[in-house]
Amino acid sequence: MKSTETLTHPLDLATALERSDEGVFLGHTAAGYSNMVGPFGGLTAATLLRAVLDDPRRVGDPLSITVNFAGPIADGPFTIDADPVRTNRTTQHWMLTLRQHGAVATTATVVSGLRRQTWTDTEISPPTVPAADSVPVTELPEFPSWLRNYEMRFIEGTGPVSPGASEQPTSTTTLWVRDTPARTLDFLALTSLGDVFFPRVMVRRGAFVPASTVSLTTYFHAGSEALTAQADRPILATARAQHFGDGFFDQTAQLWSDTGEPLAISHQLVYFKD
Amino acid sequence: MKSTETLTHPLDLATALERSDEGVFLGHTAAGYSNMVGPFGGLTAATLLRAVLDDPRRVGDPLSITVNFAGPIADGPFTIDADPVRTNRTTQHWMLTLRQHGAVATTATVVSGLRRQTWTDTEISPPTVPAADSVPVTELPEFPSWLRNYEMRFIEGTGPVSPGASEQPTSTTTLWVRDTPARTLDFLALTSLGDVFFPRVMVRRGAFVPASTVSLTTYFHAGSEALTAQADRPILATARAQHFGDGFFDQTAQLWSDTGEPLAISHQLVYFKD
Repeated sequence: MKSTETLTHPLDLATALERSDEGVFLGHTAAGYSNMVGPFGGLTAATLLRAVLDDPRRVGDPLSITVNFAGPIADGPFTIDADPVRTNRTTQHWMLTLRQHGAVATTATVVSGLRRQTWTDTEISPPTVPAADSVPVTELPEFPSWLRNYEMRFIEGTGPVSPGASEQPTSTTTLWVRDTPARTLDFLALTSLGDVFFPRVMVRRGAFVPASTVSLTTYFHAGSEALTAQADRPILATARAQHFGDGFFDQTAQLWSDTGEPLAISHQLVYFKD
Repeated sequence: MKSTETLTHPLDLATALERSDEGVFLGHTAAGYSNMVGPFGGLTAATLLRAVLDDPRRVGDPLSITVNFAGPIADGPFTIDADPVRTNRTTQHWMLTLRQHGAVATTATVVSGLRRQTWTDTEISPPTVPAADSVPVTELPEFPSWLRNYEMRFIEGTGPVSPGASEQPTSTTTLWVRDTPARTLDFLALTSLGDVFFPRVMVRRGAFVPASTVSLTTYFHAGSEALTAQADRPILATARAQHFGDGFFDQTAQLWSDTGEPLAISHQLVYFKD
């Protein structure tokens, strides 16, 4: 997808970048994807990935991305520097920084590369759930705004978005989710979708708790054909925390196609105040 | 630990760096930590972390590290550039590159920060295992060399190091492990220990298969006091893969203290040829 194309889906508009020099991309925060403070982290991750996707020097499709949320992003313009620091025959390694007024707000590394047919096996299983169309769409709060870009059908662990939420013994959330308006799945959408889970501390505590992602890593298990085949149907998403302590916790999310294929696995370390 | 101190443990010698300019560190590969091709990835990760640990500008202890193995590291000297791109009140974000002859061989990002007492809970459990001293030390092959730096007591999933290894239905490996000679645990040792697992594809296939880590992320759940308290006793380590396909798989490792506290969780994406 070239940055000169005009696509009208909110996700494409919100991640749109203007390429000024080689490896230099100009972007702007999107009010529709605001979180409690600053932009929805999934959108920031997708925007950094988009710099790589839009760069003519790119080799292959995304294999992994790590985004470190170094400081707040203020409403307004930003600059992304994208550097393919190493290009091999089948893989390529990128380092990226997102700056506002010269200060680094976010860093990222991306590995892209060529997929090829090999022995395949999946050791984990998707959770057993009813089909998406038999699960009602959950009514979401007005705030934070980014929620309005997603259609969520919660199966387990609604957390603080549920009226009368209370402390829970486990942090697991499982839902069917897709962009709204509906949009064919691609790496951009998948990257955002990996971060649609409220911080797990809120699910455990049953309340809004100050929390923000420090570092987010996504491994892409599906290639572009599998993503296109998923089209705009809801994907199955499940997340849980492993450990909370000393002001930080980690959570792992699995994103599954509606035919039970793993699309991506995403891990994050999250700061919280309690 | 300053780079001017002379510590005689192989891990300290192998990760030793000489600081030339601010943020510029000179190192050298260590024959004793060689892998099939190039250095043991856990040692490379620890060496990059050491640049941050040795840097007088560092704020706090390591919270997370992501290392991308961009290209081969040849026997010989290398240079690490370490840049604290953003320093906040309680966290600091680093970008690092390891170069040989001007070419980027490895990149890393590190988040360091201050831990503080908060609500604590662990949702996962360590595997149920016999005590370390009741499990015999596994006899390891002579090659690759890095194995000689670890004392491993396998409980499950020895994989290709076991004579007569065959295909396995799951990739789980569980073992008690520590540095040998014994060494008090710290962030350096813990970072290396997160990568002591053979690539999971070898456990599944019961044979050596060409495989190399593309990206490695470790979240540190223990602070330095907990690491010091573990002293030089074996830690409990368990790893498994999630999905294999298209020439890549991901594996997750948990490192536990011998009192059942989570020390670190480590994820990696691995290239394989099959």
